Amino acid sequence: MEPAFLPDDAYRRRLLAVVRLALVPGVGSRTYHLLVARFGSPDDVFQAAEEDLAAVSGVGPRLIRGIRNPPTMEDASALLEECSRLGIDVIWEEHPRYPRLLREIPDPPPLLFVRGALAPEDELAIAIVGTRHASHYGLTMAERLAGGLARAGLTVISGLARGIDAAAHRGALAAGGRTVAVLGSGVDSVYPPEHANLAEDILQQGALVSEFPPRAAPHGGRFPQRNRVISGMSLGTIVVEAGEKSGALITARHAMEQNREVFAVPGRADQLQARGCNRLLRDGAALVETPEDVLQQLGPLVRPVKTGDAVVRKPVELTLNPVEQQILQALDDDPTPIDRLIDSTALSASQVLATLSVLEMRRLVRRVGGTMVQRL
Amino acid sequence: MEPAFLPDDAYRRRLLAVVRLALVPGVGSRTYHLLVARFGSPDDVFQAAEEDLAAVSGVGPRLIRGIRNPPTMEDASALLEECSRLGIDVIWEEHPRYPRLLREIPDPPPLLFVRGALAPEDELAIAIVGTRHASHYGLTMAERLAGGLARAGLTVISGLARGIDAAAHRGALAAGGRTVAVLGSGVDSVYPPEHANLAEDILQQGALVSEFPPRAAPHGGRFPQRNRVISGMSLGTIVVEAGEKSGALITARHAMEQNREVFAVPGRADQLQARGCNRLLRDGAALVETPEDVLQQLGPLVRPVKTGDAVVRKPVELTLNPVEQQILQALDDDPTPIDRLIDSTALSASQVLATLSVLEMRRLVRRVGGTMVQRL
Repeated sequence: MEPAFLPDDAYRRRLLAVVRLALVPGVGSRTYHLLVARFGSPDDVFQAAEEDLAAVSGVGPRLIRGIRNPPTMEDASALLEECSRLGIDVIWEEHPRYPRLLREIPDPPPLLFVRGALAPEDELAIAIVGTRHASHYGLTMAERLAGGLARAGLTVISGLARGIDAAAHRGALAAGGRTVAVLGSGVDSVYPPEHANLAEDILQQGALVSEFPPRAAPHGGRFPQRNRVISGMSLGTIVVEAGEKSGALITARHAMEQNREVFAVPGRADQLQARGCNRLLRDGAALVETPEDVLQQLGPLVRPVKTGDAVVRKPVELTLNPVEQQILQALDDDPTPIDRLIDSTALSASQVLATLSVLEMRRLVRRVGGTMVQRL
Repeated sequence: MEPAFLPDDAYRRRLLAVVRLALVPGVGSRTYHLLVARFGSPDDVFQAAEEDLAAVSGVGPRLIRGIRNPPTMEDASALLEECSRLGIDVIWEEHPRYPRLLREIPDPPPLLFVRGALAPEDELAIAIVGTRHASHYGLTMAERLAGGLARAGLTVISGLARGIDAAAHRGALAAGGRTVAVLGSGVDSVYPPEHANLAEDILQQGALVSEFPPRAAPHGGRFPQRNRVISGMSLGTIVVEAGEKSGALITARHAMEQNREVFAVPGRADQLQARGCNRLLRDGAALVETPEDVLQQLGPLVRPVKTGDAVVRKPVELTLNPVEQQILQALDDDPTPIDRLIDSTALSASQVLATLSVLEMRRLVRRVGGTMVQRL
């Protein structure tokens, strides 16, 4: 396992303050950000006058008492020591390792507790979620989609729940890909208990992530909140199977509000587990039958992601064959003479020209002035 | 059975001319309309000079010979007599009883042969079509949708084929509703033969309709042409189950081109009979699980309705929450800057943006150029 992040003193002081504020009972992500936005830093929040605290939206007398008597430095320090001992990385939202996509959502978790390790290529992530009461069809589709997308180079994010979530993790693992489980409990309190082995497997090819302290017990209120992290870490969310009240629909709703893609797998109109997905499709979600459907639908990345030898700008590039990929990777924003491209790739002129036509059709490259080509 | 329509002499003379021109081999609906548009009436067409005929798009030497030697008055008269004897109504496209929706399509059939009777309420019609190789699920859905829509007062149009078509007719009949079968053969040449009893039942609660003469045999070339009449007589077309090459997809395409609604019933991504429907859904067909889905989707096609403080354009708007409704009502056809929307609603920017995302997903608003939004 990768060693936990070891901050320098200044960072550690700041992190301790973040931990103390984040652990005040009743301070959720939204309140945390409102307070810090108003007062400047967690330490400033602790020193704020009661009447100033009371002026912050959603802050009442009980919360004020909590803020005026936050967890001690010793408590926070002990928590960090414990995390370090358990191999749990504690990532503050301003840390470079904090997932970039998650940072963009409204009110990202101020802290993430991570067992295993997040990798830079986890920016290329897709959430696959669904009901715990899955049909054989749903489980098969979840595994198949997760496997295909993981093989293509995407990290599969899910919630470690029974049913679709577990099938998604397993599909990614079986494909030798990466997968991340976002928990509604602490990362040292895996739920459900029968997924302990699955969780261990995930640690080898990804991570367990939670915004709650390591020993936090699973309880109902935490799961909807957790769902926004699943969608928030992902370029898009695929709902494979979901009844009308499945939590997966909350995840889909978060994805919409976070301006991420929402995908749904169609199912029979007479099956309860298909109700939620069919409703999403009716409401405009993209229909998914194959991994390629997902890759084609995902828009350009805000920032290119390096995965393996390739720099990916659009997820659809993951569907390219080796020659197409080689030519694409030989190009960048600056127009490159096609002659030079032929030289540098050591491919035949006709193969390069034919491949460029394909890439142009797929809107991955553009010809410039007849003799040059640039990547889009 | 209702007596066949008995025209007066002038009408009969005109009808005879229409029959003679429509029966010239090779004169389809399109050519018929081009000729009449060019020369004025069927009689004028017969008297046109060869060089004038040749100037009409698609009219070659063989067709000119046919037009110059059309079926005789006696032939046409005998056909009408036979129709009268068999209780077959012959409806010319300018007759008031010609289905209004069908008259609106490009190149409507100049003649319809009708056994049984069309009723004024058949204007409120929905087509339900699909594969002959239906699954149990498909047959059940076809019957259930047809039954529900027929009970609601819609006439169910289909093609009398094996599989989904027959299930649709049966569902409407069992519900005590109306149903119309549009045939690819003549109405006195029911195909397939095992549906003779079904056809008799349909005559009691609707009609058999064909653009081909009563004894015309079924042959392959007539069925795609027939499909445009199925969609053309209907406000929308529901495809219940269809493989990738099912003729039902041709009907759906006609419906699109005729500017009618296209609906598809979702199915499992791993079943061949669901491929066509799932593709339609991906391409924007409306997803149907219940008769209500169809009614909700059809409703908006009429015109805006003022109810209370709100102007409703689509019934689905009535399901919006107060904030969504407030934002929707603040918008109209002209793009509105989102900033101005935030000011005018006195809602928070994040609430407005989140709500716009929801309204956008529900296809009630559209973003324009990133900073503006308009109502759909």
